[in-house]
Amino acid sequence: MTSNLAVNADRIAADIEALADITEPDRPWTRRAFTPMFLKGRAYVEKIFREAGLETHIDAAGNLTGRRKGTVEGKGTIMLGSHSDTVPNGGRFDGIAGVIAGLEVARSLKDAGIALEHDLEIVDFLAEEVSIFGVSCIGSRGMTGVRPPEWLERSTDGVTLADGIRQVGGDPDTVFTRTDIKAFLELHIEQGTVLERENVDIGIVGAITGISRFEILVEGRADHAGTTPMNARYDALGAASIIVLGIEEIARELASGKSYFAGTVGEFSMEPNAANVIPSHVRMLIDARAVDDAVMDEFVASVTALCAQTASERSVTIADPRRVSHAAPTPMSEMVTGVLAESAQRIGATSRPMVSGAGHDAAFLSKVAPAAMIFIASKDGRSHAAEEWSDNDDIALGAAVLYEAVLALDKQ
Amino acid sequence: MTSNLAVNADRIAADIEALADITEPDRPWTRRAFTPMFLKGRAYVEKIFREAGLETHIDAAGNLTGRRKGTVEGKGTIMLGSHSDTVPNGGRFDGIAGVIAGLEVARSLKDAGIALEHDLEIVDFLAEEVSIFGVSCIGSRGMTGVRPPEWLERSTDGVTLADGIRQVGGDPDTVFTRTDIKAFLELHIEQGTVLERENVDIGIVGAITGISRFEILVEGRADHAGTTPMNARYDALGAASIIVLGIEEIARELASGKSYFAGTVGEFSMEPNAANVIPSHVRMLIDARAVDDAVMDEFVASVTALCAQTASERSVTIADPRRVSHAAPTPMSEMVTGVLAESAQRIGATSRPMVSGAGHDAAFLSKVAPAAMIFIASKDGRSHAAEEWSDNDDIALGAAVLYEAVLALDKQ
Repeated sequence: MTSNLAVNADRIAADIEALADITEPDRPWTRRAFTPMFLKGRAYVEKIFREAGLETHIDAAGNLTGRRKGTVEGKGTIMLGSHSDTVPNGGRFDGIAGVIAGLEVARSLKDAGIALEHDLEIVDFLAEEVSIFGVSCIGSRGMTGVRPPEWLERSTDGVTLADGIRQVGGDPDTVFTRTDIKAFLELHIEQGTVLERENVDIGIVGAITGISRFEILVEGRADHAGTTPMNARYDALGAASIIVLGIEEIARELASGKSYFAGTVGEFSMEPNAANVIPSHVRMLIDARAVDDAVMDEFVASVTALCAQTASERSVTIADPRRVSHAAPTPMSEMVTGVLAESAQRIGATSRPMVSGAGHDAAFLSKVAPAAMIFIASKDGRSHAAEEWSDNDDIALGAAVLYEAVLALDKQ
Repeated sequence: MTSNLAVNADRIAADIEALADITEPDRPWTRRAFTPMFLKGRAYVEKIFREAGLETHIDAAGNLTGRRKGTVEGKGTIMLGSHSDTVPNGGRFDGIAGVIAGLEVARSLKDAGIALEHDLEIVDFLAEEVSIFGVSCIGSRGMTGVRPPEWLERSTDGVTLADGIRQVGGDPDTVFTRTDIKAFLELHIEQGTVLERENVDIGIVGAITGISRFEILVEGRADHAGTTPMNARYDALGAASIIVLGIEEIARELASGKSYFAGTVGEFSMEPNAANVIPSHVRMLIDARAVDDAVMDEFVASVTALCAQTASERSVTIADPRRVSHAAPTPMSEMVTGVLAESAQRIGATSRPMVSGAGHDAAFLSKVAPAAMIFIASKDGRSHAAEEWSDNDDIALGAAVLYEAVLALDKQ
């Protein structure tokens, strides 16, 4: 199929390979934001942006942009992009596939001699992943005016985030909000197994999940493991195990419904954690994700009931789950997802609506512009790991969908 | 009842209170072996040993002994004792109750003008609790010739165990085994709830439990908590929770049989332990205690089957439980437990056979002499904690049982 596409799959493969080579050598693939290796990667991205005829710029928020002027002044910008930074020991595709796919759209338009009425801008957002400063999506938050001012004081090894933004060429003191964006499109790897299992080419992302984190504390009693009869124990680990399995069951039930849901006990620790002492305290941190607040509410109600019942059955103390953080779900633009679905159909790619279970730069761009994402398949769902893999043909097909969508959006 | 006893309850109470005052002031009750506070406690014990007419001595293994010569040369020694060291933030009775009860037997014999044919020796064993050197029962192992030679090189803050033994007045280079002991008796708090719940005065300990530790490793896969569907996960924590609850069930079933059993998941840790990542690895350490090796074997077989079944059901990897340590069960002397049971009956104390679920100095003494223990009730089963409590009347009643038993053993 790719041979008939408007984009060049080989160029995409070559750029992704070249960027894979720019990694800390002893832990592939690592190019964390604000490190020398990241700047080396950026220099490469800037070079290929320029080779594609794009006018490059580092904005005040530290994003690398590549711009192609449109034919009609003041029509606004169609923006494509993602990020080139990685997690430690991360993969070769998360983020960078979206940057290179965007660039390939610009190159293919140039090759085809097509002039757009809108400006076209390809962006490498700064530090989408959780960075050395402990926070994520720094560039896309900055571009949309929602980067918390106090973040600039965050520091690691004596360097502040403000210093870090200056080092990549930004200006932390300048706060701005882009208002010229007509539409934002992001291609990203799925990081899950839905497309692979269903053998579908393109996921049209209708919403980016909301994420809440809940802490559950179980308190039993630290008695002697040898002298305390089995029927006279207040074992916090036993009670916590019931809750882990109960949360799993509740999450599976909710996930089997119409709306996306995922629930995970990601953190779990125990006191006193000594071989010969019955566990007295367990702390769990639950990661719960939904795009429908009613589903999240149902989860909270079910887990609260589970905690109460377990506390009663086991004669231990369990407070109600405490919400320690919350990010609201972000619906994508129906106009843009509609254009993307039509574009996929036009080039013969299969597609399905999806929800993004992970956060992305598009969530912030959606605050200032109609925005949407497409996913392409991740082999075996692996991501943030060396095993991360997406077939180049799938990336190229996604780039071709973006190409069609840009042409369609330009005409609106 | 105590008013009719041959021993003086008030003297016991006064000594236990005096020793409670010898504690690190900010974390009662702490008198860890090899610390200045321990030596202060020992000085008090030595003083009251002397006041009781006992000839005091620190043996080469670092034990404090108080001796009363018998009337018949070469008849051997009847030994009573326990330990005066504590765990950090420990209790006022664990160990010291047995030392003071033994001393009170010697005082009461003196008061009554009774001469024994055997020598009588009261012992404060060195470092019964896990010490700053990470090992326990240092004194009783030393007295019975089973202290591992390499332990002397263990060190903490640049001080070796050999140094520590010298500091308390022992001689680590002298290795010896006592062969003169006719019988060894130890009174100890139960550290469990059996006597309290059944309202029985005295537990006659027929065996000290064997202890095995097993490591179980669960390996799943660290996928993204948001993008991995609930039905496509290899969650190590879910599988581990099934194993925790299964072990609990197996242990309860075994404990409800005729022979003692206790099983506890005391250590539990998880990787990567990050909020947004599905747990990939869990390590558990199981503490299993039985006096009958067949019961321990049954536990191992059941847990092995549980691990295999869980691995299969959950598509995770779980190796067979690995035994990382083993201490064999120690039966007590039937001769001595018989004498103790008769002695209890003689003074009108109720008693029942018991198993010690914790290790004690008596386990080592049993290697060189007929040995047995009696337990007195622990309030609410608490031990190794500030809440540890035993009623003084119960301790005095136990001392009176020892008194009767010593008289009976002396006539054999």
